[in-house]
Parts: sequence; C-alpha cells; structure tokens
Amino acid sequence: MNNIRIGIVGYGNLGRGVEVGLNNHPDMELVGIFSRRDPETLDTTSPTYALDDILDFTDKIDVLILCGGSKTDIPTQGPALAEHFNTVDAYDTHALIPEYYKKMDKIAQENENVAVISTGWDPGLFSMNRLIQEAILPTGDTYTFWGRGVSQGHSDAVRGVEGVKHAVQYTVPDPLMIDQIQEGKKVPYEATEAHTREVYVVLEEDADPVAVEKAIKEMPDYFEDYRTSVSMISEEEFNHEHQDMPHGGAVIRQGQTSEEEMSIIDYSLTLESNPEFTAAVNIAYARAAYKLAGEKQFGAHTVLDIPPYYLSSKSKEELIAELL
Amino acid sequence: MNNIRIGIVGYGNLGRGVEVGLNNHPDMELVGIFSRRDPETLDTTSPTYALDDILDFTDKIDVLILCGGSKTDIPTQGPALAEHFNTVDAYDTHALIPEYYKKMDKIAQENENVAVISTGWDPGLFSMNRLIQEAILPTGDTYTFWGRGVSQGHSDAVRGVEGVKHAVQYTVPDPLMIDQIQEGKKVPYEATEAHTREVYVVLEEDADPVAVEKAIKEMPDYFEDYRTSVSMISEEEFNHEHQDMPHGGAVIRQGQTSEEEMSIIDYSLTLESNPEFTAAVNIAYARAAYKLAGEKQFGAHTVLDIPPYYLSSKSKEELIAELL
Repeated sequence: MNNIRIGIVGYGNLGRGVEVGLNNHPDMELVGIFSRRDPETLDTTSPTYALDDILDFTDKIDVLILCGGSKTDIPTQGPALAEHFNTVDAYDTHALIPEYYKKMDKIAQENENVAVISTGWDPGLFSMNRLIQEAILPTGDTYTFWGRGVSQGHSDAVRGVEGVKHAVQYTVPDPLMIDQIQEGKKVPYEATEAHTREVYVVLEEDADPVAVEKAIKEMPDYFEDYRTSVSMISEEEFNHEHQDMPHGGAVIRQGQTSEEEMSIIDYSLTLESNPEFTAAVNIAYARAAYKLAGEKQFGAHTVLDIPPYYLSSKSKEELIAELL
Repeated sequence: MNNIRIGIVGYGNLGRGVEVGLNNHPDMELVGIFSRRDPETLDTTSPTYALDDILDFTDKIDVLILCGGSKTDIPTQGPALAEHFNTVDAYDTHALIPEYYKKMDKIAQENENVAVISTGWDPGLFSMNRLIQEAILPTGDTYTFWGRGVSQGHSDAVRGVEGVKHAVQYTVPDPLMIDQIQEGKKVPYEATEAHTREVYVVLEEDADPVAVEKAIKEMPDYFEDYRTSVSMISEEEFNHEHQDMPHGGAVIRQGQTSEEEMSIIDYSLTLESNPEFTAAVNIAYARAAYKLAGEKQFGAHTVLDIPPYYLSSKSKEELIAELL
C-alpha cells in the first residue's frame, strides 16, 4: 500500500504538532508545509511552500490537515480548500459548527472530497464520549472538567488588558468535586463553580498592579463569574516556568442502570502538550479521511459518524483478532 | 417513529439487566422474554414465551438481545437466530471471536439480517478504546486493569473444588500501579503482577480448610500465578456481604506525541452491577443494529466498525448541534 500523503496548512503550534506527530505513523508521509508567510523563513527542515501555490499539489497530496485558527483562518480556508482536497480540521467554535458542517458538506460533496471537521479533543474525543456515555446510560448526568491547563483564549484576553506585557491563564478543575463524582455522589455542577482560573502576569513598566488585577477579575464572560487568582511575576519567571502548554480534562457520566444501581464512565486526558495531542487526533482522522475518500463516502464527517476502525492502520480483521 | 421492538433470549443476570435497562429507553419496547425454561416459572411481570416458539415472532421483533452464556449458549443460539432476526450479543470468548464473527457474518448476510457481536465492556467498550487510543498515540503502551469486581469464571472454578459449598472471587487491581501509570511513569506490567485475587469460601461440613486453600492457590491458569488470598467465611456472611456483582476497570494509554511530550488517555468504568452495565451496552447496540438493518447494512458488525451516532436515539444533526 502506498503511504498516505499529508499536507499541513499553517505552521503555528498545531502545525508543528502535526509535523512531529507524523513521525509516529510509518504509513504516512509529509509532502509539505503550506504557509502564508515566506516559506523560506519557516524554522523547519520539512519542505515548505507558499499557500498560494497549493493548487499545484492537488495530485500530490491525499489529505490536508488545516492547522490555522478557528476565528478567522478555518472559516475561509476550510471551504476554499475542500473544493480541491480532502481535509481535516479542528474547528472549535462550538456555536457555529452546525453551519460550518453544512457548508463543508456541500462543497466536499460537490467536489467529491472528504472533509472531516472539528476533530481534536473538545470538540472531538470529548464529544464522541459524551454521545456514547449518554446512549448507554440515558438516565444520569454528564460532568465535564477542563484542565489543569493553559487556555489560549483566556490568556489572549488577559494580554489585552492595559499594562500587561505577558500573561498566561490556567484553568484548574476542582479536584474534590471530581473525587466526589468518581465516587458516585450527586454534585451540583456549574462550570463556574467547578473550575478556578489562575492568571500569571508580567507587568509593563509603571503599570498599576491593583488596576490590572481589578480589570482581569471583573472581565465579563472570561473571569467575572469565576474564582480567579492573579499573580504578578517577573519576566524571567514567566520565561522559565510558563512556556509549556499542558492541558487535559475529563468527561464523566454517572448513570442509573436501574433504580438501585449506578455505573460511572470516566474518560480522562492528561496532556503534556495540548497542541501535540490535538495534532495526534487530527492525524488519526486524516487516515480516516483517506479511507472514506477511497470508499467514495464524500462530504463532511465528524468524530460522531466515523467508524472507529477507520482511525487505525490495521485491517478490520486484524483489529477483531487483536483487540476485540 | 415506531418504537424499536426488542426480544430477550435467556433470563439470567444479563437478561434481567436488559429487562430493567429498557426502562431507560423510551424509544424501545420489550416484546417478550424467551427462555428454555417453562415460561410460566420465570419470576417477572414481562411477557414470557418458550424459546421453541420464537419463530412465531419474526414479524413482531426488530432486534433480539442474546443473553445466554458464551460457553455453550451463544455459539449455537447466535447462528440459529441470526437466520431469522437481527441480533446483539455479548459473546466474550476472546480467542474464538474471529471465527464466530465469520460465521455470524455469513449467516446474517445470507438472510439479510444484522448481527452485532461481542458488545459489552471487555470485549466491547474496552476494545473500542484500545483501538482509538493506539491509533492516536501509536508510540506508547496500553495498560488494562480489571476490578475491583467479581469474576464469574474464577468463582465457578473455586466452586469446583472439593469441600467448597459457596464461593466468590474478586479480582483486585493494584491501586499504586494505576496511580503511577496515571502520573506518566513507565511501569513493568504483567496482568499477574497488576492484580490480586481475593477468594471467599463457605466450606462444606467436615471439609479441610487447609486442603481447600491449597487446592485453590495452586490451581493452574486461574490462581497459580497470582497473589491469592483465601478467606473462610460463614454462610450467613456470604449471603449478607457477597451477593452484589460490582465490577469495573480501566484501559490506560501512555503515548509520546513527540520525544519530549507524553499524553495519557484513561478510560475507566466503575460499575455497581456488572450485568446491568453489560446489558446497558447491549441495549445501545440494539439501537445500532436496528438502524443498520434499516439501511440494509447486513452482516456482522462489532463495536470497532459501528459509527458512534448509531447508538443514540437522536439524529446526526441534533448530535452535531448539541455535543460537538
């Protein structure tokens, strides 16, 4: 069998995660990284190309993994590229996913391509587990926890506050609440009560720490409803202690199989590198996209509809013998 | 939409679990319980019928859930019933699953039925998670733990020892080893080292406790290679403390996303009633069998090839909007 030929669009944290992650998959090869930046300037030994030249590669790439941001990149790049390529993305603007699905489905169908959208872990693996947990245990409650990990969105929001030079925000779940849920106790759950937010800030010279802390803690949507701690740290400490991108979380279902008996399903992730893990999920779904395209199952697909064995490099028969 | 009409074949612990579990699913209804015993003698308010009369129900049942044992019941009942019905079973003799799959696939295809085989949690949900974990994190190690829970097979083995009146065996995983794996430490894993076995025995009158304990601890395959404790207890204590059927376990994958960074995926179950949870999984896959049959996807299917959304009573569009 020929290798699956992969292209990466966008060379930020996620793109670098896909680049390094492909080393784990001997049945796949990286054709190139496509960027809006001057390809000569990318710090990599992989082949790099200008995104404007990507249509020269329609016969050389089986699946494109779209590694741009969900705010502005994916909503335009997804539809444009699904016209010419099979694509995988980690589009994560939850409220707009149904609309994006419809758009990608139409374009991919019309052009006989496959578009796997919104992979990663939330949306993605967490969504799949919520579905399976609820289908098996329909009478019960699902609890989701995020962290401990860096939230890019919240870190960006803090960096927007006047007087902030650098900042990072960690989302921290309540470990006691998780313990209680794992023990089968019914817990009143609100995301705002179940998580705290830890902010580390390097101030601009002459900034007022009291004003900065107040501006952060009172920021609506992001911090106002949460218990938030703000710590002012030195640039040296920031560079030394806060450069990693760990994350993780859990989707836990408590369900009654009968009035007397409870079952608990707990799906937990502990990730030293959030972008590398998200990339690892994208890569497995790129294999699925390749197989789906081979079977002419054109259109948009998600983690909710893709048969698990499409993720594997092994045949269905091997998997039944080895894993079932 | 009409309700999905379910039949239960076999009325042991699993059959009772399906019967009570169907109360959680308003889109399904129980047509009847089919037993080799005199249907009048079954202790239930549900309709009961003789298994010999089941062919009168080919037009009245959408999916049969086969709740017999894997040793002798399923290998004969599965092929016989897949000729006339869509079926779901929890066949769990791991080594023989490939052969059973082929046989069921042929019969179901020839008769335009769907046979979902080997559902439950191991094989079943654990198999699916092993597949997905390995596909996403191919460079790493998978650890499986079972328990704390009652092993029917090991309890049966102890009951076969001379001088034993009643017995129950609990499989107990090593909590320290689980902690170390969850923390990302590499652990030398052997199932025999990772689990201990706790046996509780009620002796026959005049039985020799020393001989019984020796016979259990030295039993090949079952106990010889494990750290095993044997406790002699009174019949009263046995009836009072050891009638529940809890179980559970975990499939944990440690994988390197790059040389530097590790991710851990942890899928854990805590079950107050093992048969009721296994039944809950069977019921969700009965819904999948119904949908697959509606789409004429005849033949044998497993948890490895069924798209997750087939388990749910909701439409793909609803699930994308609510869960993705």
